[in-house]
Amino acid sequence: MCGIVGYIGKKEATPILIEGLSKLEYRGYDSAGVCVYNQALNLMKAKGRLAILEEKVTNNPLKGCVGIGHTRWATHGEPSDENSHPHYNEDETIALVHNGIIENYLTIKEKLETKGYTFKSETDTEVAVQLIDYYYKEKNDLLDAVITAIEEIEGSYAFAILSVDEPDKVIAVRKDSPLIIGLGDGENYIASDIPAILKHTRDMYLLEDQEIAIVREGDITILNVNKESLQRDVYHVDWDIEAAEKGGFDHFMLKEIFEQPNVVKNTLMPRLPLDQDEILLDNIKLTQSDIEKFKQIYIVACGTASYTGLVGKYLIERVSRVPVISEIASEFRYREPILDENTLMIVVSQSGETADTLAALRMAKKAGAHVIGIVNAVGSTIAREANDVLYTWAGPEIAVASTKAYSAQLCAMYLISIKIAMELGKIDTNAFKALREELYALPDKIESILKQSHKIKALADQYKSSKNIFYIGRGLDYAVSMEGALKLKEIAYLHAEPYAAGELKHGPIALIEDSSLLVGLVGQEELFDKTVSNIKEVKARGAKVLAIALEGNEAIEKTADEVIYVPRTHWYLTSILLNIPQQIFAYYIAVGLGHDVDKPRNLAKSVTVE
Amino acid sequence: MCGIVGYIGKKEATPILIEGLSKLEYRGYDSAGVCVYNQALNLMKAKGRLAILEEKVTNNPLKGCVGIGHTRWATHGEPSDENSHPHYNEDETIALVHNGIIENYLTIKEKLETKGYTFKSETDTEVAVQLIDYYYKEKNDLLDAVITAIEEIEGSYAFAILSVDEPDKVIAVRKDSPLIIGLGDGENYIASDIPAILKHTRDMYLLEDQEIAIVREGDITILNVNKESLQRDVYHVDWDIEAAEKGGFDHFMLKEIFEQPNVVKNTLMPRLPLDQDEILLDNIKLTQSDIEKFKQIYIVACGTASYTGLVGKYLIERVSRVPVISEIASEFRYREPILDENTLMIVVSQSGETADTLAALRMAKKAGAHVIGIVNAVGSTIAREANDVLYTWAGPEIAVASTKAYSAQLCAMYLISIKIAMELGKIDTNAFKALREELYALPDKIESILKQSHKIKALADQYKSSKNIFYIGRGLDYAVSMEGALKLKEIAYLHAEPYAAGELKHGPIALIEDSSLLVGLVGQEELFDKTVSNIKEVKARGAKVLAIALEGNEAIEKTADEVIYVPRTHWYLTSILLNIPQQIFAYYIAVGLGHDVDKPRNLAKSVTVE
Repeated sequence: MCGIVGYIGKKEATPILIEGLSKLEYRGYDSAGVCVYNQALNLMKAKGRLAILEEKVTNNPLKGCVGIGHTRWATHGEPSDENSHPHYNEDETIALVHNGIIENYLTIKEKLETKGYTFKSETDTEVAVQLIDYYYKEKNDLLDAVITAIEEIEGSYAFAILSVDEPDKVIAVRKDSPLIIGLGDGENYIASDIPAILKHTRDMYLLEDQEIAIVREGDITILNVNKESLQRDVYHVDWDIEAAEKGGFDHFMLKEIFEQPNVVKNTLMPRLPLDQDEILLDNIKLTQSDIEKFKQIYIVACGTASYTGLVGKYLIERVSRVPVISEIASEFRYREPILDENTLMIVVSQSGETADTLAALRMAKKAGAHVIGIVNAVGSTIAREANDVLYTWAGPEIAVASTKAYSAQLCAMYLISIKIAMELGKIDTNAFKALREELYALPDKIESILKQSHKIKALADQYKSSKNIFYIGRGLDYAVSMEGALKLKEIAYLHAEPYAAGELKHGPIALIEDSSLLVGLVGQEELFDKTVSNIKEVKARGAKVLAIALEGNEAIEKTADEVIYVPRTHWYLTSILLNIPQQIFAYYIAVGLGHDVDKPRNLAKSVTVE
Repeated sequence: MCGIVGYIGKKEATPILIEGLSKLEYRGYDSAGVCVYNQALNLMKAKGRLAILEEKVTNNPLKGCVGIGHTRWATHGEPSDENSHPHYNEDETIALVHNGIIENYLTIKEKLETKGYTFKSETDTEVAVQLIDYYYKEKNDLLDAVITAIEEIEGSYAFAILSVDEPDKVIAVRKDSPLIIGLGDGENYIASDIPAILKHTRDMYLLEDQEIAIVREGDITILNVNKESLQRDVYHVDWDIEAAEKGGFDHFMLKEIFEQPNVVKNTLMPRLPLDQDEILLDNIKLTQSDIEKFKQIYIVACGTASYTGLVGKYLIERVSRVPVISEIASEFRYREPILDENTLMIVVSQSGETADTLAALRMAKKAGAHVIGIVNAVGSTIAREANDVLYTWAGPEIAVASTKAYSAQLCAMYLISIKIAMELGKIDTNAFKALREELYALPDKIESILKQSHKIKALADQYKSSKNIFYIGRGLDYAVSMEGALKLKEIAYLHAEPYAAGELKHGPIALIEDSSLLVGLVGQEELFDKTVSNIKEVKARGAKVLAIALEGNEAIEKTADEVIYVPRTHWYLTSILLNIPQQIFAYYIAVGLGHDVDKPRNLAKSVTVE
């Protein structure tokens, strides 16, 4: 996730671009850049927060009335000046900014290299601009070049393109990444999101997938890939800027919850090509002999990320039969764990800077273990120091309570665990295909759960005054219950505690009374009856029961007071779906209790101290 | 722990004995027996609850005006008719009942066997009566025989002895097990505890260690082992029977908390002979080659017993470097854990009947694993089905919330873990001796913590209205914190949650406000500063802090509002001491809140369903 801004008109472009980018920093902030046309293309970019770029352009003003700008959330290539956008073709005659992930960029890169192209950066974006350059040289028309290029590009993208040969226009095109065109008077705007240009105009065209906008000073033309002109309604924005930053949602947390279908798609699809029966884990090389070497796997993390570890443990042990220990980093690092070169360690961290997780990583590396990082922030310390990294392409997470990053971490864990199972011969091609099909279906299934948010809000309103709240489940559901309870603690400040369903009667059931709420997770088909028995024991003692169950298991209605259903999927993947209602439930309880959802008291987004 | 009753007078002894035993069932109830003199000794005993014996004597009345009775809580030898008391010598001329554990019974047994004695039961008690027989044949005087025998016997005992040759008296003697003599009018009584005879008399002699009472119809003589007559004050009981059953404590739970010095002594000492530099684990044979075979150790249990597993995991992994997984039985059994003949499994259960733990045991045995049971109830299903058993000699636990059984389980875990470390060469003789010395010192150290119960009661009164309660610690202290929080849940119905100290800031710290209470455990010297930092983070957000710390670490007073100190010991053994204040704290909070402490709502003592 990155932010794009473009301007064409009579004013100086740079201040407009910089100010627009400042409204998009929530979309990424590890580097930024602008390119402005003034006889030639003039580029300036800088690693780090936008303020650094701002200082640069103050010291060396970039003059010109047409330009594009970008603020980056790194995916391919770590944050650096070099990897920042805009990117040039080799001749520096075409500049391009990009939001999204080009899945087949390596294939295209190799093709262009055989044609003599060289690349300065590690980004997929540079591949796009060079591809456009390649076709431009063939066709001598920027629009034709762009159309030909996007026919070849797979993945998601929003592009804004500026050419020295056709400086009267900026070309904008998108697929699966947002892009809007702002209508001014004798000037027009491009942006990946409304807040960037809301100061200048409230009238927008919202580009659809594979529509191309040719944006000129006094004119905007929208075409399809066959160059047929399209009529688009003007969308008039009547929100204020703050609401606009949140995409119309009341809070970043809710926005991020609703981003999950896309986040899951971004994290999974590029690694699951439909034309190959294998998982592409970026640069991670886990061969059969590598994996057979590992006698012990540790999954180490803190907070929400640590619950990914519990899911990973269940999946890997059950299917691959390799012993897995899932552990909290602050405990792991001080208990002298058994580590050697036959140990695989997976660390999970959204920020990539979590102090205890980083210390655990260093300890494991020192002992000769092989460390894979599941990290959201590209180029973060954990990403740099791990032997391998699998990025979660969740984009920046603004709300302190993690939602989309956790779902992305689960996706990464699914990929790694399936990869291990395949290499060890525990999952054959047919089983893999079945799993891949279900992985591909996840975004739509998440979408269908999000559609129930009104119902879940009503339940939250009903139960927000509950005193004792227990989340219970067995097996994989127990792992999910931990995240559900933590979410409620973090933002609703309610004492919600997760318990293995079978453990309740060994003590905690003493707390159950009429004002208690039990959230019962029943996503494991084979444990359905067992968990339902445990729910009944609690219900018999007066608690209200909210069950989260699989569609088709309506028998649960005999026991539970309320049921939220999630779509069925492969048993391997239930956790991610079962968790979504928990997020929405916690969110609306916190809202109902009047808390500052995005910035809960006492908490920080990234815990860089022990 | 068992119950003893004796009678001599003019009435029929049997109904008095049976009725007395019924008041002592809280001390044990797995078998019972009586022996009454009427020309000869007539014995009747039965496995199971006292009601079964009662039915037997109703059908076949035992006539006679002098007799002894016993209700058993098995230690050596499982519950059976054969192992029930009273026990005879081979000639059936001397009958004896016994409470306690004879530590050197195997040595004595071997000696007697060389003299031609044979034994019917597996008990240490039969050894005692045969030893008395041996000396009686030598000396022809019952008193002399008893005195010579007890000089040879090591361990704890209370005996009541009846002989066909001297039927005018019952001889009673004790060491480290209680025994009292009740004064009647032309009749006298013996009992291990006041309630057994309170219906008949309120005047008692309380026998001291190694005092011998010769109890006749009209006379009671108390002697020391040099046969010097002693004057004892009459103790007049002014409690009612219910209070008497609880030994003067308000609840069984408090009584059981105060029994812990003795329980720890019983569980540890017989296995730690001072004249051998090794640990005697009853019949468990864990040789070096056995242990080296184990690639993985599981410790599986439910509820409080499962926290023993966490302590075991820390100790075994840290010292012996064998991977240990500590797991809840209800989770373990359904997740297809990796088990084979190279697996050692330790299951822990007070009752020996816990359904999930039993199922886990059976699963492991089926997969070829070697299973050791740490069990309190001798002859229980888990004890019978495990490959090996290490009994915790805690006696029956009446209060639903476990206290003394947990301490005894910790002791068993200490013994097993030290044994493993010794066999693997990780603890040498000197290190073992240092540990043994500290193990021997535990009962007195527990005693010194119990002496602080007034102070802890005051703290409980002060904090009983706390809403959110967190228990935190690192490493071994984290395991202890789990038991502290569970105790408060079980009997005070308060939402107390344990957390690894380093994890708080990853979410739960959001709950902290002025009404919150943090119980901070700082028993790990090397983690002192880390945990104190975490406590400060919570204190800064308004919570009150109660620390449980080691004597000498008074620096904690700068951070904590209140501190309870426990004596220093070897780091290996801190958990058992740190937990005692938690028990007392939970007890007094529950009392302060007016709850039924011994029978908390919704809970059962032994969980024999899933």
